[in-house]
Amino acid sequence: MKKVIIDCDPGHDDAIALLLASRADNIKILGVTTVAGNSEVYNTTRNARKVLDYADVFDVPVYRGCEKPLMRNLYRLTGAIIHGEDGLGGPSIPDPVTPIEKEHAVDYIIRTLKESDEKITLIPTGPLTNIAMALTKAPEIKAKIDKIIIMGGAIMDAGNITSAAEFNMYVDPEAAKIVFASGCNIYLNTLDVSMKAVFYEEDIERLRLQGDKVSVIVAQLLDFFADTHVKHFNFRACPVHDALCVGILIDESIIEYQKTFVDISVNDPLTMGETVADLWGITGNEPNCHISVKVDREKFVNMIINHMRKPYIKK
Amino acid sequence: MKKVIIDCDPGHDDAIALLLASRADNIKILGVTTVAGNSEVYNTTRNARKVLDYADVFDVPVYRGCEKPLMRNLYRLTGAIIHGEDGLGGPSIPDPVTPIEKEHAVDYIIRTLKESDEKITLIPTGPLTNIAMALTKAPEIKAKIDKIIIMGGAIMDAGNITSAAEFNMYVDPEAAKIVFASGCNIYLNTLDVSMKAVFYEEDIERLRLQGDKVSVIVAQLLDFFADTHVKHFNFRACPVHDALCVGILIDESIIEYQKTFVDISVNDPLTMGETVADLWGITGNEPNCHISVKVDREKFVNMIINHMRKPYIKK
Amino acid sequence: MKKVIIDCDPGHDDAIALLLASRADNIKILGVTTVAGNSEVYNTTRNARKVLDYADVFDVPVYRGCEKPLMRNLYRLTGAIIHGEDGLGGPSIPDPVTPIEKEHAVDYIIRTLKESDEKITLIPTGPLTNIAMALTKAPEIKAKIDKIIIMGGAIMDAGNITSAAEFNMYVDPEAAKIVFASGCNIYLNTLDVSMKAVFYEEDIERLRLQGDKVSVIVAQLLDFFADTHVKHFNFRACPVHDALCVGILIDESIIEYQKTFVDISVNDPLTMGETVADLWGITGNEPNCHISVKVDREKFVNMIINHMRKPYIKK
Amino acid sequence: MKKVIIDCDPGHDDAIALLLASRADNIKILGVTTVAGNSEVYNTTRNARKVLDYADVFDVPVYRGCEKPLMRNLYRLTGAIIHGEDGLGGPSIPDPVTPIEKEHAVDYIIRTLKESDEKITLIPTGPLTNIAMALTKAPEIKAKIDKIIIMGGAIMDAGNITSAAEFNMYVDPEAAKIVFASGCNIYLNTLDVSMKAVFYEEDIERLRLQGDKVSVIVAQLLDFFADTHVKHFNFRACPVHDALCVGILIDESIIEYQKTFVDISVNDPLTMGETVADLWGITGNEPNCHISVKVDREKFVNMIINHMRKPYIKK
Repeated sequence: MKKVIIDCDPGHDDAIALLLASRADNIKILGVTTVAGNSEVYNTTRNARKVLDYADVFDVPVYRGCEKPLMRNLYRLTGAIIHGEDGLGGPSIPDPVTPIEKEHAVDYIIRTLKESDEKITLIPTGPLTNIAMALTKAPEIKAKIDKIIIMGGAIMDAGNITSAAEFNMYVDPEAAKIVFASGCNIYLNTLDVSMKAVFYEEDIERLRLQGDKVSVIVAQLLDFFADTHVKHFNFRACPVHDALCVGILIDESIIEYQKTFVDISVNDPLTMGETVADLWGITGNEPNCHISVKVDREKFVNMIINHMRKPYIKK
Repeated sequence: MKKVIIDCDPGHDDAIALLLASRADNIKILGVTTVAGNSEVYNTTRNARKVLDYADVFDVPVYRGCEKPLMRNLYRLTGAIIHGEDGLGGPSIPDPVTPIEKEHAVDYIIRTLKESDEKITLIPTGPLTNIAMALTKAPEIKAKIDKIIIMGGAIMDAGNITSAAEFNMYVDPEAAKIVFASGCNIYLNTLDVSMKAVFYEEDIERLRLQGDKVSVIVAQLLDFFADTHVKHFNFRACPVHDALCVGILIDESIIEYQKTFVDISVNDPLTMGETVADLWGITGNEPNCHISVKVDREKFVNMIINHMRKPYIKK
Repeated sequence: MKKVIIDCDPGHDDAIALLLASRADNIKILGVTTVAGNSEVYNTTRNARKVLDYADVFDVPVYRGCEKPLMRNLYRLTGAIIHGEDGLGGPSIPDPVTPIEKEHAVDYIIRTLKESDEKITLIPTGPLTNIAMALTKAPEIKAKIDKIIIMGGAIMDAGNITSAAEFNMYVDPEAAKIVFASGCNIYLNTLDVSMKAVFYEEDIERLRLQGDKVSVIVAQLLDFFADTHVKHFNFRACPVHDALCVGILIDESIIEYQKTFVDISVNDPLTMGETVADLWGITGNEPNCHISVKVDREKFVNMIINHMRKPYIKK
Repeated sequence: MKKVIIDCDPGHDDAIALLLASRADNIKILGVTTVAGNSEVYNTTRNARKVLDYADVFDVPVYRGCEKPLMRNLYRLTGAIIHGEDGLGGPSIPDPVTPIEKEHAVDYIIRTLKESDEKITLIPTGPLTNIAMALTKAPEIKAKIDKIIIMGGAIMDAGNITSAAEFNMYVDPEAAKIVFASGCNIYLNTLDVSMKAVFYEEDIERLRLQGDKVSVIVAQLLDFFADTHVKHFNFRACPVHDALCVGILIDESIIEYQKTFVDISVNDPLTMGETVADLWGITGNEPNCHISVKVDREKFVNMIINHMRKPYIKK
């Protein structure tokens, strides 16, 4: 059983990441922490709770985290366009009944790691503000982190927010720089693979035809997300970025990785938030990251479709 | 009675700031928090406890804070030259007997502010890492902060670490940028005044001649500090930077301030950590800071000498 | 007949670019200008003259240009490793007999463009120092420039000098930024195509077997260049980057281009010299550049092999 | 006799610098070069010629230089406010009759230095674009430069364009960085002294009462300049910045200098164009500049008043 904390900003693909983890036989979600990103932290926290409640996951606690990036205001525009005003546009999901935890997400992450006998995997699918705060406040937690599986960045591909930067890295580039310099064991799933691991219309229909309430709501989330991708990027397929980070814990063969050194640009507005990877080993720096280089779309799409219809079993 | 939290990295002048606050009739030190700066946080925490114990201040708790700046390694060289290897070179002060608190400095600051009915003044005399962390994790504490009285920066004068930057701002420029952008009510005591509010040899002798144990140990601290200033800067007088931040709470007439807009340079290695002040009001930005423009050396020196011989009275 | 000025820093692939242009039926080289890059300008100028004399091209004048990048010292290390100490390691080519012109390269470029009735194509295959200087000193020449066909940059691929930057752009990033902001009609051949348009051992042998003096010397140049690529990059094939810029004037079908906006990073050491391309049209900036996206290796290799054995015919 | 080339962007104080040099017994102006700065180069060139013709200086040639800074667009706003739309607001001075030279300012500077048997002093009173271009194109001219006496920068004082930067340095910071890194013998007159070397109303009246045509027109220029300083900066006195650079060749005692290392910030928008001076010798860099630290206002004001009424004598 892989123990994970999912740090997220739902967000359509974050929501699907949560659902996938909740249905995976080999994953135990210890807790969910939230951060400002695709929407304000008020919204992302509510959305996380909403999705978990809807999917009968009442026993996984949700902790609210930082309300803005370390050194910048929350970049609000794109999130609202892509994910809707409240961060989870599309289907109407009932308000959550389970309350949000009182403890701050950063403290929850630190405490859980410190108290754990085994190593835990962190899965941040939003800006890295909470993770950077936890690593700065309590660097001793590094010894308890198994992996940090990040959704973010773009290496060979261009960014989706600026020419150079992907959204999660762009929103809090300083936090990202802190995390990549931390010495932790990092897996980075970038746009290079996530823009290839897409759902086409027929995939969404297969999901919808399963007919159970989770499959249907996920199909509706993908409808909305596919729609905003056409409108905003003129991109006619639906990525499910964040779910890849959960997916590789279920079947590691869905993504191939290359070990390399990655650093984050923070000083030039032109490249701010860029994940700069030393693909050819020119810098002489020790690799600090496994970056995704190839993805098996079919396996990934099937994995999501197959897991969505499973009932939630408490682990 | 002014309630304060002193966030420091003793350091000779931090030590004197602590002693001055402990002897001031109108100041109640709620707690002392420590940070990496003049020395590693292990040393600065031990030094804070050492100085308080030595001066019979057993009831003021000390909390250890962040062990490195947000985005950079601790710049170690100059601190060791100026303050000695353990951060408090010179007289031999006995090891502390009172234990360090368990709570993290950042949590202590947040909790104390949240629980307080009245506003509290923060006095950071080292790098601003802890303060930036607290403001980021719990921005709601801003409402409870009366003032933040900072020792740091250089406006008209050159820096003491690079051409442009003063030590505290240089060590954690990103933290400083966060604090200055926070909207809090900031007083900034810069090198422009602290390098003028100096002790000369005869001042140190007056202090020593008072004969009590605190006056004598402070005279010995100043001997050491004066000595390293001659050797390193060829500067023949002894500044007591940090104590100014406490001093103005005792007698606000010792420093004159000008309201202005201050921001911190973080992107250019040449100016990194510089406190850039809009002295002429050119930028159109609202003033966010009172910066020191003039100091009354005599009043300040006399204030320190007179307070050192006072006994500690619990408040 | 396409009139061109080739601005270069030979350099093995620059030398082959010069030879290819000299043998092309449809290209008239008005002049060759040199710049510091692969080696000092003294060496690159001598190498240009050496190669032209060796290939019987006595009537194309060579003008020496800037001896260092605008704002940085010449980055010397990699050039020497890849191209040898004098910039053209490998075969021994006799010293040139034709003298270097007296006029400065920048003045020659400006004067030639101003005096010309038709538009002229500039082919810079080294750092863009001379071109940036000419555009700054005499912006009115823009009206006379048909195209600027640049070898440099890396878009999807990583750089060959740092994680982010290609050599020519890295050596003088400020000059590159000036050129890309100039409004000229730019074609950019990047490492993305040039590292695919490579000579394999059998290609070099085909060339050598032609037996004429130019083919043989070019084969020897490629031997040396292939060898340093194995040693330095562990890359087992021989790129001929610069010759692509000439090649597309002979047969435009060898490279496919995409119109996009490109800017150069100059403020972050991590990304300095990076060619940041807005591949998805996110920035809203007007495209200012055609960037290479695909290359036909076979056509290009055959083009070079076939042209090398041709005699020089004065045009 | 001191031979000088004045590189300027008149501009009221540039105009007075030209007049002062033309009337000085010990200065021979070899030529005047112009640059974009206080106004477009078309205007500054016309203004230089206008002022010289008006003052009977028909034998000093004027050469037009660069029309924009190296890497930025001309910052236009402040120049127009302070100097008027055409760069020389106030008195109506007749159009020039002497034609502008054909040679480019950069070429004139290079040629004159190369052909000269003695060293020549360059006096740039505007952005350093032309000087940086000349040093880059022909670094060998350094051997012929006696001094470069620059008006620009602010060390202890704040800037007059941003919190950190003075106008001339801000307009072309990259050019300034090139010049300060050139190894030339630099004298830098900053706002620290020029904002103290001011004309008060009574000084302007003394000048006007001299009654000759040059004194009267200069008084009118100062009227206008004083007026815009009140309106824009709320500063009630009239600086004559650029004339200081000429003044110290007439009487070197008017300014005291300190040798120090100066570099220019170009990477942070907050400090862009700042002249960062190592006043305390902390960096370990060799001093590359004499910076002004003190000025004798009375001597300077009297010098200008006394020279304005002198007739022009060809040297």
